[in-house]
Amino acid sequence: MKGDSDFIDVYGSELYDYDKIARRFGIAGFRRELFPSPSRLMRRGVVFSARGQRELAEAISKGKDYYALTGIMPTADRIHLGTKSVVETIAYFQEHGADTFILVADLEAAAARGVSLKEARKRALEFYIPAYVALGINPEKTHFYFQSDNKTVMNNAYRFSGKVTLNEFRAVYGNADPPRIMAAVTQIADILYPQERKRRLGVIPVGIDQDPHIRLTRDVINRMKRSRYVVPSSLYLKFMPSLDGSSKMSKSRPEGMIELPSSPDEACRKIKRALTGGRESVELQKKKGGEPDKCMVFELYKQHLIEDDRELEEIRRECREGRIMCGECKQRACSLMKAFLVGFDKKMGDAKKKIKKIDFLRE
Amino acid sequence: MKGDSDFIDVYGSELYDYDKIARRFGIAGFRRELFPSPSRLMRRGVVFSARGQRELAEAISKGKDYYALTGIMPTADRIHLGTKSVVETIAYFQEHGADTFILVADLEAAAARGVSLKEARKRALEFYIPAYVALGINPEKTHFYFQSDNKTVMNNAYRFSGKVTLNEFRAVYGNADPPRIMAAVTQIADILYPQERKRRLGVIPVGIDQDPHIRLTRDVINRMKRSRYVVPSSLYLKFMPSLDGSSKMSKSRPEGMIELPSSPDEACRKIKRALTGGRESVELQKKKGGEPDKCMVFELYKQHLIEDDRELEEIRRECREGRIMCGECKQRACSLMKAFLVGFDKKMGDAKKKIKKIDFLRE
Repeated sequence: MKGDSDFIDVYGSELYDYDKIARRFGIAGFRRELFPSPSRLMRRGVVFSARGQRELAEAISKGKDYYALTGIMPTADRIHLGTKSVVETIAYFQEHGADTFILVADLEAAAARGVSLKEARKRALEFYIPAYVALGINPEKTHFYFQSDNKTVMNNAYRFSGKVTLNEFRAVYGNADPPRIMAAVTQIADILYPQERKRRLGVIPVGIDQDPHIRLTRDVINRMKRSRYVVPSSLYLKFMPSLDGSSKMSKSRPEGMIELPSSPDEACRKIKRALTGGRESVELQKKKGGEPDKCMVFELYKQHLIEDDRELEEIRRECREGRIMCGECKQRACSLMKAFLVGFDKKMGDAKKKIKKIDFLRE
Repeated sequence: MKGDSDFIDVYGSELYDYDKIARRFGIAGFRRELFPSPSRLMRRGVVFSARGQRELAEAISKGKDYYALTGIMPTADRIHLGTKSVVETIAYFQEHGADTFILVADLEAAAARGVSLKEARKRALEFYIPAYVALGINPEKTHFYFQSDNKTVMNNAYRFSGKVTLNEFRAVYGNADPPRIMAAVTQIADILYPQERKRRLGVIPVGIDQDPHIRLTRDVINRMKRSRYVVPSSLYLKFMPSLDGSSKMSKSRPEGMIELPSSPDEACRKIKRALTGGRESVELQKKKGGEPDKCMVFELYKQHLIEDDRELEEIRRECREGRIMCGECKQRACSLMKAFLVGFDKKMGDAKKKIKKIDFLRE
């Protein structure tokens, strides 16, 4: 468990003590009661903390103009379930009136990961954007752009570089390599870009590991002479744990990770080897009941596979009361995952047709 | 005298031991005999050293495609005589077939000096570009651009950031503040921009204090997988010394500096207080002769006021032989400077009309 260090290591893979981190950085617990029809991730504590949530809730309830923004790092040809949660959270705000921006961080991919701008563009068009649409983003109501096409973002990134010292970068990130600095100032410019023509509130849902960017953005805004930008709100999502329970889902533990797309068989194979909250023997489990809150299969239900709260609660109860065993439960998760993966593929196919009409922002 | 430190301090104001610096950084002495009709600054050792001069001379003599590039830092409303020398050197290459690029470093001015992009644009259009044209640049044969308008430059700057480590920035510049890093990688992108559509040699004339940028550019090119860019040649100009002889001309010693534009009276007043190579008394000077090579007035003749080599040599001889005294000589410098300043104002006026037709590059 982590939470003691002075900075959140953006590259760390351990599970976090979320409450401790939230307290340390002064992030409030998320209050789902403030939000209309809270999403599955909101209701179940996956969205676990927030900055500026009161202003955000007010913007929604009063129908004020506000925006939601997220980015695509086009370095691969699949995404993991943690990304899915961020995208679904963006979709929630889009459904609740947010002017939605999705940027492709092609400059960062080029500088930090050696992916050419051309290749990044290809991956964004052929995979990431269709995947985001398949996960609920409405492409007709979303502003998409590539960093490399956006002069305003690049100009502002340069300007913002004068608002942060090298030591601050180091304190926030643990290092201050030049491409890291470029990425950080560009990310600030991305986050504030929707305010370029109009000063307004925004919401940025992120994994807790991305809070350094958010804090830096807040600091930069506060250092500007005239407060040209509204400090955006941010929501923090818990990581999707690795199926072995040892860390967050990440490429370094491929057996613990389910990616999109995946073959249903492969996903099932991984689910069947997942860490559960089962007891040493069937007898003991029937007697003492299982521990769903330590179970990675239950985590899959909770975060991804079961929409209905009563259905989820029913599984938890059955497990706790020793009325359902792990094998059976895994089989159920497999079936649900298969249905999801097949549906995802189908939606991806439909989305690829839709996105041909996207009019990318260029400045 | 400087020249011992491990890096050339870009902000230093002491006079340099040019030979020592050239040796230390492996820069060859400038060989004017390689170049057709060498300019006043080339003939007189103001252009004192170079990298890649053989390739450059060959490009000129064989009529190959090559480019010359310099930048404008639009932070003021006047330039000093050192800038004049760089501009005149660009004009020399333009007259000798160079495809000429002049960029306005408006992003750097904004991040490092707090000049807004709008203000930078205004200054460039109303002062710097007309001044450069007045000093010999042919606007019809020059590609002008603003950094903030040039996506290619910004994209490449981001990419190049991955080719330099923080420690290298620190070694080269003495510090590695974020806007400094942004400026450095953007400058590399500017220097290489004319090769974007066509790989070709270029020449960058700079004050010796700018060599760090040049070396970094060379390093970045050498680190790229496929050698996409030709390493540009560079010429190094000596500083114009302050009129008090104590340092290079700079804003921190206003009485030692002649700026363009200046009122002729003010310029004369400063010339009359300049350090000369005169002796303690007229009698002694008549007997032993003056020391023109220690004289700031002679430096003005040499670098700026007298085009004809024989005329300059005649003054040196008269001075050395004690046939001309400092008062008389200063009066002559005043007259020449007045004529130059009046001519400059006239040319500026004409240039302002011409530049309305400039078609700035936008990418």
